[in-house]
Amino acid sequence: MPVPAPLALSMGEPAGVGPEIIAAAWSALKAEWPVFAVVGDAALMRRQGQPVQAIPSIDMAAEVFARAIPVLDHPLPDAVTAGTPSLRNAGVVADWIEQAVSLAVAGDASGVVTAPIAKAPLYAAGFRFSGHTEFIAELTADIQFADTRGPVMMLTARDLRACLVTIHSPLAEVPQLVTEERVTRTARVVHEAMRRDFGIAQPRLALAGLNPHAGESGSIGLEEIEVLGPAVARLRGEGIRITDPLPADTMFHDEARATYDAAICLYHDQALIPVKTLDFWGGVNATLGLPIVRTSPDHGTGFDIAGKGMARPDSLIAAIRLAGQMAAARAAR
Amino acid sequence: MPVPAPLALSMGEPAGVGPEIIAAAWSALKAEWPVFAVVGDAALMRRQGQPVQAIPSIDMAAEVFARAIPVLDHPLPDAVTAGTPSLRNAGVVADWIEQAVSLAVAGDASGVVTAPIAKAPLYAAGFRFSGHTEFIAELTADIQFADTRGPVMMLTARDLRACLVTIHSPLAEVPQLVTEERVTRTARVVHEAMRRDFGIAQPRLALAGLNPHAGESGSIGLEEIEVLGPAVARLRGEGIRITDPLPADTMFHDEARATYDAAICLYHDQALIPVKTLDFWGGVNATLGLPIVRTSPDHGTGFDIAGKGMARPDSLIAAIRLAGQMAAARAAR
Repeated sequence: MPVPAPLALSMGEPAGVGPEIIAAAWSALKAEWPVFAVVGDAALMRRQGQPVQAIPSIDMAAEVFARAIPVLDHPLPDAVTAGTPSLRNAGVVADWIEQAVSLAVAGDASGVVTAPIAKAPLYAAGFRFSGHTEFIAELTADIQFADTRGPVMMLTARDLRACLVTIHSPLAEVPQLVTEERVTRTARVVHEAMRRDFGIAQPRLALAGLNPHAGESGSIGLEEIEVLGPAVARLRGEGIRITDPLPADTMFHDEARATYDAAICLYHDQALIPVKTLDFWGGVNATLGLPIVRTSPDHGTGFDIAGKGMARPDSLIAAIRLAGQMAAARAAR
Repeated sequence: MPVPAPLALSMGEPAGVGPEIIAAAWSALKAEWPVFAVVGDAALMRRQGQPVQAIPSIDMAAEVFARAIPVLDHPLPDAVTAGTPSLRNAGVVADWIEQAVSLAVAGDASGVVTAPIAKAPLYAAGFRFSGHTEFIAELTADIQFADTRGPVMMLTARDLRACLVTIHSPLAEVPQLVTEERVTRTARVVHEAMRRDFGIAQPRLALAGLNPHAGESGSIGLEEIEVLGPAVARLRGEGIRITDPLPADTMFHDEARATYDAAICLYHDQALIPVKTLDFWGGVNATLGLPIVRTSPDHGTGFDIAGKGMARPDSLIAAIRLAGQMAAARAAR
């Protein structure tokens, strides 16, 4: 079997916890697969207490990885003070993401892992996307992709894969946003991703209801009957295995999770409450339905704790491992 | 210290899992506190494979409890077939609840535990309350009570106590129902219950936000600023310790739960998802803000598994224990 290409890890906000958790993740992973190369500032990486080696090309990452953090060096213009983002640096942060994506699109990286970014300095620097996910979707919009295009956000915790129909919408807007079209499209993306990126031949999807007790036959809300039911019928007509809308509260305990491969959740907290209750530190965010593999840790820049040695690398380590698994599943097709 | 009065346990729907889980709960609890007496049909109890003794008065429960299930016998008119509720029996099911409540109001029982009821046969028999909680609130409406009156539904799982501002409302109605008045009143009831029924001198309440990331300073919904913030200010003015609205997804993991005594949740699944994810089998429903102690298992009648020996008594056992603890805390004041 050919050695898979390394992952490209964008360094993220330099004044946040990114550099230190990358160093900790390398320390945990250096003796194992998957290999990654950091796209970022080598001098800043060197200040994190681990050996660093700048590499001119990502194909050198594998031979460096066991003894040093391989870095594709794109230096920042400003000095970095932990906890205080810089406007001049923000433009370079966006360049790092773009380069990591380019490497994956070219096939020189097997996937992209993104360390957390801070939105305010990026917006101030002219960044016009609401986050990583939308930016990466745009960067890959013209790349050929045979499957249904996302992006669909998936959060993982232990054996739970929770995929979102709506993400950062006010709760009052969720009922109108949960349309048959959105539910159908999300489930299609998830179904195809389970096959392509997770190697599951016959994925089993579990659909969450919107209302308490999934509406209890229409006595507590009609969305299950009027919106979700028709979406389920359509999906089954396409050969996709998906449950009827389930009471969301009984979907996420140990025995329930064993009955499906991915949950389709209708709004942010319906997915994020079980994810963060089950595994607060090790959750991973993966973007499904893109021409490239992309994961990220499920936390922010941590400006309040940056540089203090307090940040936990669990989520980044899990994100790197998951990207490696997804890339291997794609390669094995 | 005086021996606390027994708990009164209403038998619930006779064709459901109630009788068998009561027998199993007695078997688990017979050597320990708290003592309970069943208010129900003694002949039906006898068919559950455990010794039963009909008692004429609840004050005999304690001396019987170690060797038999004490039953205050109020026979059903119809024979019982597991899985098939009877209309004629439904009226007696309501009488059992009423008698259990009367015993608690009189002080002869230290609290009430209710086994699950089936709503359809009760409604057909003329029962005009939406469930146990509303019925018991009505039965105790004229009883003197110094604290803020509920009912407030609280669900427990492990160390989590999750209290609900809205319960069985369609999700689309939740944003309008979450008013400053409802949040304030719910939090007051919970604060007082933590002191009275749980012996916590300075309760710490955690308030869940409505929107993703608790609205992120108003960028994902305004309810945290316009509704929840004023409620928090009012409650703090009354000396109640309560957090600002918190992102609901980060409130329920092990470390977060250690920081508060009760969570105030705004809608059904926000409370029930963490409760049932943390402990699917052992959750308990307690009604706060009543003149009497009342708990129940957090599941339904289980008609599909009734009589098959499959029903788990975990939740009923936990409900009996919790009622005993709450009664003891009230008695110790």
